[in-house]
Amino acid sequence: MAKYRIAVIPGDGIGKEVMPEGIRVVDAVAARFGIEFTWDHLDWSCDRYHSAGSMMPKDGLDGIKGHDAIYLGAVGWPTVPDHVSLWELLIPIRRNFQQYVNLRPVRLFEGVPCPLAGRPDIDFWIVRENNEGEYSEIGGRLYPGTDNEMAIQENVFTRRGVDRILRYAYDLAQSRPKKHLTSATKSNGIIHTMPFWDERVKAMSEAYPEVRTDQYHIDILTAHFVRNPSRFDVVVGSNLFGDILSDLGPAVTGTIGIAPSANINPERDFPSMFEPVHGSAPDIAGKGIANPIGQIWSGAMMLDHLGHKDAGQVIVRAIEKVLTQPELLTPDMGGNATTEQLGKAIADAL
Amino acid sequence: MAKYRIAVIPGDGIGKEVMPEGIRVVDAVAARFGIEFTWDHLDWSCDRYHSAGSMMPKDGLDGIKGHDAIYLGAVGWPTVPDHVSLWELLIPIRRNFQQYVNLRPVRLFEGVPCPLAGRPDIDFWIVRENNEGEYSEIGGRLYPGTDNEMAIQENVFTRRGVDRILRYAYDLAQSRPKKHLTSATKSNGIIHTMPFWDERVKAMSEAYPEVRTDQYHIDILTAHFVRNPSRFDVVVGSNLFGDILSDLGPAVTGTIGIAPSANINPERDFPSMFEPVHGSAPDIAGKGIANPIGQIWSGAMMLDHLGHKDAGQVIVRAIEKVLTQPELLTPDMGGNATTEQLGKAIADAL
Ligand SMILES: CC(C)[C@H](C(=O)O)[C@@H](O)C(=O)O
Ligand SMILES: CC(C)[C@H](C(=O)O)[C@@H](O)C(=O)O
Repeated sequence: MAKYRIAVIPGDGIGKEVMPEGIRVVDAVAARFGIEFTWDHLDWSCDRYHSAGSMMPKDGLDGIKGHDAIYLGAVGWPTVPDHVSLWELLIPIRRNFQQYVNLRPVRLFEGVPCPLAGRPDIDFWIVRENNEGEYSEIGGRLYPGTDNEMAIQENVFTRRGVDRILRYAYDLAQSRPKKHLTSATKSNGIIHTMPFWDERVKAMSEAYPEVRTDQYHIDILTAHFVRNPSRFDVVVGSNLFGDILSDLGPAVTGTIGIAPSANINPERDFPSMFEPVHGSAPDIAGKGIANPIGQIWSGAMMLDHLGHKDAGQVIVRAIEKVLTQPELLTPDMGGNATTEQLGKAIADAL
Repeated sequence: MAKYRIAVIPGDGIGKEVMPEGIRVVDAVAARFGIEFTWDHLDWSCDRYHSAGSMMPKDGLDGIKGHDAIYLGAVGWPTVPDHVSLWELLIPIRRNFQQYVNLRPVRLFEGVPCPLAGRPDIDFWIVRENNEGEYSEIGGRLYPGTDNEMAIQENVFTRRGVDRILRYAYDLAQSRPKKHLTSATKSNGIIHTMPFWDERVKAMSEAYPEVRTDQYHIDILTAHFVRNPSRFDVVVGSNLFGDILSDLGPAVTGTIGIAPSANINPERDFPSMFEPVHGSAPDIAGKGIANPIGQIWSGAMMLDHLGHKDAGQVIVRAIEKVLTQPELLTPDMGGNATTEQLGKAIADAL
């Protein structure tokens, strides 16, 4: 019997409400596939920051580095600045555990309205560099508080960092029928790092002769997401460009409220982390009406990562089925189910 | 009689084909309004780079700094690297002439299909910082050509640079009925420059109590462009974020092929520059079928900037009229008119 120990971080706001439904559904499918999960709940959150003075314990990461995966709800709350809630929890996990791949699916679901006229066929993946690039601690202020004030931010792209995300993206493209990779760049405007990115794409493409590569500057690429979304298969981008594209993509399919994401360490030296794309949603937190599908779908990605592709697929198919039944859905999708009712409906549909 | 001397830079590819139509239409409306234009043609381009070794003469900018405006077609060609064609022509003009505002309209036209289902009402402006920020010469490579290679890019945001673009954007918002300004940020990920940007927005907003301000991280902002484009009025962003949003916006209205832009020096110490958003389009260059509307509409923005709002409006109305007549349009819009025929049709519709 396959056994896994998962670090569970419900986090803040609706993170705490959707997490039980994620666990419910993963447990239900696990039982069927003879998989056993142990869920270790951690209180790492803005609440903890208020009561204990930090988002997580000092040796927090040491305590979970041997876990098989991390299942996260949502982190952040209006009372805690982002540089604390994100840079003392989410981003250190991504970096310390070398989760350098952020993977997000972009696809249509029957029953979910697509904002594009004609509802074109859309089914692709965004592969985002998740550890370096534009997100960097390097920089600061000169002449703060004066008219001469300036702020400087350094972007750092390493060959190791760029090559490993490209390799992952090319492997994914190679495994898909279309074998098509699109690189997001801006080498006409960002003249030091982006031409370097393009060079590494060119070098890596030579190792994957079967994969068709193209590249677009990020400005026109966002336009193509709206105008020609059917042409994409695997889209790879830097930390910032990948961040933008992985919100825009699900907006174009109408799935931004239910999108999942995987923060993956492909070498499995450290646990990978699975989290919905949505945030802690202070406006609806505490009402029991948050949509748990992003959390549940992230659970499917976790099963997939752990080697149980079939079990993950069963969850995705249950989500597909339930999405066609409006009366089973939460208010954001026009229904009046609670978070728990929708979680149970998906568990029942497995 | 108002008289203006304009530096004309047709540039490369279809830039050379659409420019005569821009001049045709501006001249036609000028005659009606008693305005006289002198057009000084310059050969600054990739062609010039090949024949004379540089995109423009060394003292090129000196020669046009007294002109009333610059009218540009498109710059760039596959045989010349971007860091030459753009960074030795387009970007030095923007910077040396302190054209720190890049202004682009996002609106629907009857007759132009909108890719969004339901064709929501869309009518807003993108105000992009055009001189500093993420576009910077500062940076370089360490250990080039080795496994330890890295590329570094510095983003530089000054209080002077940020405040002046925000002031322009707030003035614009203040002048509009909705009085609503949206700031593009990413202060949760880009932790030095973007929190600084947010601070300056907050400070500037206090001087404009009638303007309603909101802000979104760039990732979710691109999603809102697709999901709720009607909510925007004036959107202000950094050089990179503004670049992205000003392609995405016109993609959402279906107008990306005809969009204009103004590179404005509001103090009028130097000439401002007016150019279509589209590029030199090597794939269709030389065929005489390029759509000249972006060039013509940019001419309308030039008239507006020179103080002839009415004359600019007459051009925009002529464009509106012609866009409803498919048989007058170029192949990109389903017609079979030539560039010249479409230019003449707009001149006739004035
Ligand atoms: C050509 C390129 C450098 C330019 C930019 O990014 O500024 C273009 O995309 C634009 O928007 O005018
Ligand atoms: C919260 C924020 C720092 C984060 C990011 O930009 O990485 C989020 O937008 C995401 O995509 O996971």
